[in-house]
Amino acid sequence: MSNKAQVGIIGSQFVSHIHALALKRCAEAELFAVASPTPGHAQKFAQNHGLPHHFTDYKQLLAMPEISLVVVGVPNDLHCQVALDAAAAGKHVVMEKPLCLSLAEADAMLAACRRAKVKLMYAEELCFAPKYVRLKQLLDSGALGEPTLIKQSEKHDGPHAPHFWDVQRAGGGVTMDMGCHAIEFFRWMLGRPALKSVYAQMGTYVHRDKTAGDDNALIILEFANGVVCLAEESWTKKGGMDDRAEVHGAKGVAYADLHHGNAIQTYSSAGYDYAVEKGGSTLGWSFTVWEEEWNYGFPQEMAHFVDCVKHDKPPLVTGEDGRAVLQAVFAAYESARTGRKVQMPFVTDARKPHDLWKPPET
Amino acid sequence: MSNKAQVGIIGSQFVSHIHALALKRCAEAELFAVASPTPGHAQKFAQNHGLPHHFTDYKQLLAMPEISLVVVGVPNDLHCQVALDAAAAGKHVVMEKPLCLSLAEADAMLAACRRAKVKLMYAEELCFAPKYVRLKQLLDSGALGEPTLIKQSEKHDGPHAPHFWDVQRAGGGVTMDMGCHAIEFFRWMLGRPALKSVYAQMGTYVHRDKTAGDDNALIILEFANGVVCLAEESWTKKGGMDDRAEVHGAKGVAYADLHHGNAIQTYSSAGYDYAVEKGGSTLGWSFTVWEEEWNYGFPQEMAHFVDCVKHDKPPLVTGEDGRAVLQAVFAAYESARTGRKVQMPFVTDARKPHDLWKPPET
Amino acid sequence: MSNKAQVGIIGSQFVSHIHALALKRCAEAELFAVASPTPGHAQKFAQNHGLPHHFTDYKQLLAMPEISLVVVGVPNDLHCQVALDAAAAGKHVVMEKPLCLSLAEADAMLAACRRAKVKLMYAEELCFAPKYVRLKQLLDSGALGEPTLIKQSEKHDGPHAPHFWDVQRAGGGVTMDMGCHAIEFFRWMLGRPALKSVYAQMGTYVHRDKTAGDDNALIILEFANGVVCLAEESWTKKGGMDDRAEVHGAKGVAYADLHHGNAIQTYSSAGYDYAVEKGGSTLGWSFTVWEEEWNYGFPQEMAHFVDCVKHDKPPLVTGEDGRAVLQAVFAAYESARTGRKVQMPFVTDARKPHDLWKPPET
Amino acid sequence: MSNKAQVGIIGSQFVSHIHALALKRCAEAELFAVASPTPGHAQKFAQNHGLPHHFTDYKQLLAMPEISLVVVGVPNDLHCQVALDAAAAGKHVVMEKPLCLSLAEADAMLAACRRAKVKLMYAEELCFAPKYVRLKQLLDSGALGEPTLIKQSEKHDGPHAPHFWDVQRAGGGVTMDMGCHAIEFFRWMLGRPALKSVYAQMGTYVHRDKTAGDDNALIILEFANGVVCLAEESWTKKGGMDDRAEVHGAKGVAYADLHHGNAIQTYSSAGYDYAVEKGGSTLGWSFTVWEEEWNYGFPQEMAHFVDCVKHDKPPLVTGEDGRAVLQAVFAAYESARTGRKVQMPFVTDARKPHDLWKPPET
Repeated sequence: MSNKAQVGIIGSQFVSHIHALALKRCAEAELFAVASPTPGHAQKFAQNHGLPHHFTDYKQLLAMPEISLVVVGVPNDLHCQVALDAAAAGKHVVMEKPLCLSLAEADAMLAACRRAKVKLMYAEELCFAPKYVRLKQLLDSGALGEPTLIKQSEKHDGPHAPHFWDVQRAGGGVTMDMGCHAIEFFRWMLGRPALKSVYAQMGTYVHRDKTAGDDNALIILEFANGVVCLAEESWTKKGGMDDRAEVHGAKGVAYADLHHGNAIQTYSSAGYDYAVEKGGSTLGWSFTVWEEEWNYGFPQEMAHFVDCVKHDKPPLVTGEDGRAVLQAVFAAYESARTGRKVQMPFVTDARKPHDLWKPPET
Repeated sequence: MSNKAQVGIIGSQFVSHIHALALKRCAEAELFAVASPTPGHAQKFAQNHGLPHHFTDYKQLLAMPEISLVVVGVPNDLHCQVALDAAAAGKHVVMEKPLCLSLAEADAMLAACRRAKVKLMYAEELCFAPKYVRLKQLLDSGALGEPTLIKQSEKHDGPHAPHFWDVQRAGGGVTMDMGCHAIEFFRWMLGRPALKSVYAQMGTYVHRDKTAGDDNALIILEFANGVVCLAEESWTKKGGMDDRAEVHGAKGVAYADLHHGNAIQTYSSAGYDYAVEKGGSTLGWSFTVWEEEWNYGFPQEMAHFVDCVKHDKPPLVTGEDGRAVLQAVFAAYESARTGRKVQMPFVTDARKPHDLWKPPET
Repeated sequence: MSNKAQVGIIGSQFVSHIHALALKRCAEAELFAVASPTPGHAQKFAQNHGLPHHFTDYKQLLAMPEISLVVVGVPNDLHCQVALDAAAAGKHVVMEKPLCLSLAEADAMLAACRRAKVKLMYAEELCFAPKYVRLKQLLDSGALGEPTLIKQSEKHDGPHAPHFWDVQRAGGGVTMDMGCHAIEFFRWMLGRPALKSVYAQMGTYVHRDKTAGDDNALIILEFANGVVCLAEESWTKKGGMDDRAEVHGAKGVAYADLHHGNAIQTYSSAGYDYAVEKGGSTLGWSFTVWEEEWNYGFPQEMAHFVDCVKHDKPPLVTGEDGRAVLQAVFAAYESARTGRKVQMPFVTDARKPHDLWKPPET
Repeated sequence: MSNKAQVGIIGSQFVSHIHALALKRCAEAELFAVASPTPGHAQKFAQNHGLPHHFTDYKQLLAMPEISLVVVGVPNDLHCQVALDAAAAGKHVVMEKPLCLSLAEADAMLAACRRAKVKLMYAEELCFAPKYVRLKQLLDSGALGEPTLIKQSEKHDGPHAPHFWDVQRAGGGVTMDMGCHAIEFFRWMLGRPALKSVYAQMGTYVHRDKTAGDDNALIILEFANGVVCLAEESWTKKGGMDDRAEVHGAKGVAYADLHHGNAIQTYSSAGYDYAVEKGGSTLGWSFTVWEEEWNYGFPQEMAHFVDCVKHDKPPLVTGEDGRAVLQAVFAAYESARTGRKVQMPFVTDARKPHDLWKPPET
């Protein structure tokens, strides 16, 4: 057996595909098995990515002694149970965002991993996106002076899989799905100060036929160090993914975008395979991404997590961070309902964020 | 005497200089006189711009029968009195933004102009900026589908004249000074639907030594047609003026910026005269504006107002619009204090917007 | 009769439409008549633009005593005769680029206008495009140091009217049609030093079915002051007009583009009226121009020429300039055939530039 | 001993530093030794990069049996001898661009490596730059139709080391130093068709005090498939490295730049460590690169070469390619002197390219 970390992938959809591509680029990791309940999915995934083992029941994967690390990309409502089972099986866990549906679930996951002495790592790839890493260095170097305002946004025209539209499974809409990126981005950029307040404006503008969740959101966060952060999230933005950040400081400002500026500007009357995530037609003008996974930071993220597992290092983004993000997401939905700035820490026993915006009938 | 409209300029500072440059480009207008109380200012202004008359007392200007229109660029706390006097003298009025300090003042101005049968025109030049005019055409044409989110921001590193720092005179900080641009921009873009609510996040981050006013603000507006608008304003942003807008709709999105994209990208190790408003040093890289007044819409705006006066047409932007903007500004300061979304119409007898954010001690 | 200059337009196609739009924005000009030989064209043009008079024979237009200035937009092979007739009728002439087909024609035009004491003005609008005017100011101010290399290019996917494809009428391909813009641009930017040499690479790449003329060209010019200039021209570039310039100097560099940077970036799944010249479909991403004529400098150009006529001022761009450009165009075609740098001044009695590239069979 | 390829670095200046950084990112390579004749340089380099061995005489490095591959970054006039010695020692060779000074040297190197059965690999990193790799995929996929024109340029304000200014050592100026990048870029993009002709415009504009070599060049290449390519190279361009490419085809066009669009746009009144190669001051606006080596393709290039060595695969860029590039460079200098397009293949026994432009006195 190789001295690489053997990795199990739980899930076989969009993000698990990215996980596999990213892990293949890690010198210290080896893809060992995949599990997905839908018949045929895991098998096909294993074939495509050259994995030796595949299962329909992830518990069989967890039972393999060779595997030290599982990377989980399943619907949000399954995050907690998978993490509990993985911890029980003594596997380290990389959990896709958002961490889970409720603060109670988060606490259970954290406790289980602590007890089992396994790492609970939170897959916020923006902390590894190389352009954003450089942006953070600029801020940390003092180039921009004391920060005043940080912005980050992700916008595209809707999620990859149907379960995202179902608030019972996803826990919320675009704030849950993509706002969580921005929130951890801000925490990471600022060195994780306490969060003081959250305000959110949400609505369902375009996809009312598909979802009860929010498809557009503006979220304003105040941190204890006085910095204001603005997250803009959309599931209705046409023309391909938009992922951008700005850092405004007393001595300067920096603008980083992962798409339009970065891209090859292409005009094609013939069309071609693929321009960008959610980019639609490639006829006419398009903004062609290159090394998409790498520019988002996925391989770098997986390499880091594998390194943490192999050499017992503390991860850059942990389950605790995922919990803090989720708490802010809850506050955002509370704010969207009340029209008020919510003071943090916000304690709630709601079962999912959406319930605070549109309370379930009892 | 020419059959052009004879125009009097009240004020001699930054914006009055722009008014003069803009009016010189109007075929139907002639600059006739300028008034400014500071000894020497009006005289120098008249020399620079070739005006035949100048006064230290604007009432002498108002007494000239040749003049049919005055264009007012004075500190905010003087707006109301100048307008009342101009109306009494039977002159049409172009009033710089913001309209005045309080809703009571606004009502007095509107009543006086109505009584005197003169036009009260509100100088929101963004409604004439050619790139934004094209942006509105795109929206109106259906190219973007039903709008969901509109953004506009103006950011630079602080106002031109000291009276802006003094909340007694200015009535507020950057929300009062530049937020008013965005608010009228949104109203104009959307065809002036009723405003439903206002939320604002404000702070004084960098200029606490100079002002009690807000130097950074995020303002979220909801209109009756369901569209959300986001204004971002800053007096702390280094590197020159930033003036941008985005329109997001169900069928598309459009991005218009008046500066970085528009500019000549210049690197100079020698430096040169001027890159852009508040741009600072021209050594190294700079973003060189060209036809600055024209790109903001000033000549187009003045030509429109002169046309309205000469041919008795209804202005595109009126005193009523200025009042509606001011009402939203009041709501923004109320929201900044309370941390709540303020429902419109918001009625207040506060003497200036700042009083709602930081109530004066009694 | 008004004291404005009464203007006659000769031609009714694409560029004459632009001439009319531009002249309508000149306070000192009035559109008086249009002439076009195709039955119905002049009449329709007159209706669209509100001109009181229209003719199928331009000599009738020239016979109108009210008219002091004609603006000529006809196929290249007619330029000379129209100019001679206009001079004979005592009218000032604005001639669209290129000036005419041969140096002999140019000399005849210059002599006729000199004799008739009318101005022969050469319509190179790039010298009036506001962004390029600012670029020239940067260069003249010393911001960039001594220039080393200047670039300008115009690229789209083919000419507006069929006569451009016909080298008998047009005199050449894209070098004749659009290279002439760049050549005068360079002369103007540099203060019109003598031209020392010309090298050109030409080919017919995409439109061999339509034309014997060049549809792509690279032209390198050396001026007496040592500056090298590079013109890139294309009739095969998809995705809308591209018009850009760069000035490289010993102390700096400046980049000005009239399209992509300048434009509103638009994504539309609904489509809309018009994005940009030759832009094709507006579905998907497009780069929306705004104030297209103004950004090219057409109204500014016409205002200047009208001012020259009304107040007897020397034009910024003259028939002599048009002749110098044409001479460089001849040298370019000579170079394209020989593969050699052509030393200037280049004397030729060829009847049109294309003959030097692909000599007619005798 | 590890089963990684042990690599020796010959040279310790700018590019060797990049080689070391790139090789450290290769999972299959281990940095083993460095050689540099200047006392102390190799030692310091070894310390900085953690290499176990260092020498002042590269022959000692070549004598180490552990080393299978040497990566050479020395002045151009030493390329040939080092390659001959490395081949004699049985080491595979990665040679920095340009391959060497003359075609005779190139032939000697190729023959020696062939005899010794070692690979001669040519370090053209642009063929590995990820954005350009995607650009080539676009072209190869048919998205742009048949290519008509390809452009590539590299511009900064002068070379890293004094020996580049010395044409005796460097063999030429910017065409030799950076034109070679563009030439191989074109060959690679087009699948390496035969080169038909070369035309070049060169001059020494700014650095006459430092060099007899060209500091600005425009090079036009015609390939056998009819495609025209334009290389623009400069050692006088202020404001930081500019590396860009365009591919124009009958069905589309694509623009890729590695700097301005790619960068973080930063304004800093405090300054910071580093914006970009040759970028100078970081005060004011700058274009901040991120992952600079990776964006140029250095680690990808080294990983490929190491893979070729370890698994005996054919390299993407070979000594033969380096020779073909050098031949085109000779033709460019010949053309610059004669003012003529040079037909290929161009045979010359000149000892270095510069001799064809400015023949040495005999």
